[in-house]
Amino acid sequence: MEPHIVDDVSAFKLAFRRHAAGVAAVTGRTPDGVPVGFTATSLASLAAVPPLATFNMARISTAWPAIEGTSHVLIHLLGARNRALAERLAGAHDERFAGDHWSPGPHDLPLLAGVPAWMLGRIVERVPVAENAVVVVQIEDGGLGTDDEALLYYERSYLTPGAPADA
Amino acid sequence: MEPHIVDDVSAFKLAFRRHAAGVAAVTGRTPDGVPVGFTATSLASLAAVPPLATFNMARISTAWPAIEGTSHVLIHLLGARNRALAERLAGAHDERFAGDHWSPGPHDLPLLAGVPAWMLGRIVERVPVAENAVVVVQIEDGGLGTDDEALLYYERSYLTPGAPADA
Repeated sequence: MEPHIVDDVSAFKLAFRRHAAGVAAVTGRTPDGVPVGFTATSLASLAAVPPLATFNMARISTAWPAIEGTSHVLIHLLGARNRALAERLAGAHDERFAGDHWSPGPHDLPLLAGVPAWMLGRIVERVPVAENAVVVVQIEDGGLGTDDEALLYYERSYLTPGAPADA
Repeated sequence: MEPHIVDDVSAFKLAFRRHAAGVAAVTGRTPDGVPVGFTATSLASLAAVPPLATFNMARISTAWPAIEGTSHVLIHLLGARNRALAERLAGAHDERFAGDHWSPGPHDLPLLAGVPAWMLGRIVERVPVAENAVVVVQIEDGGLGTDDEALLYYERSYLTPGAPADA
């Protein structure tokens, strides 16, 4: 169980590099109606009844004013065939919604095409922590697309799920 | 993008079944010193500086009184060889700490053996949401064990990361 890491930031970065995460994309609109969105690896279930989920973000991010000012977001669970979509929504801001990979969905929010599943989330909490926020949503609607393998982010790469772990 | 799911609980369950998650284990002690722990698929990074992370839990769970009453927890990021450990910490409560798979670690918290990485988290927020809580921790220390593939939970199975997703 060595080496012991005394620098907490290093401990954190090295530890989380050994953690895998599913990939989601969150979309919304600014108060002026401009579509915003980002790729998130922090999406987690909080409860099934009522259906609640959380995601984390920086309050210094470009998308924060939209999240701060909106009542609802769309959360998309990405599949293996959505890798380019994941990269686009983590890339240059002015290119994230340039194209026909989305259309207006519930509440006029940007609905991304070709995803395995999406959910409409009503924001019920925005918890500020330092320069960040935990966003809690209650799921009010959703839809399924064509099934796909899940998209993972691990060791700075986009992967698909693999073999069973040995029992 | 059909079928459209009008029942929000069904939408939620079906959607999250298509999402993969890394597997962590959280340990603590009750105010009386009894070790408690559970397997979590909700662990997520919140920020790197300062190092912050979140996990979600039910406040009706057996471990909640310990989380409510402790200043610190240990968070273990599990690897493929820890599948049995993950199952143990999701199983019968009176068997979770029966054995030599743990030892007292920082703050006398249960430190699980053989994990790729662990972090000491100081609880900085407990956010109640309905019958659940979002727990925010600041990482104060950590250590690395022998490297391993990440352990995933997906489609109700424990898996390892697989092939790259197509670009």
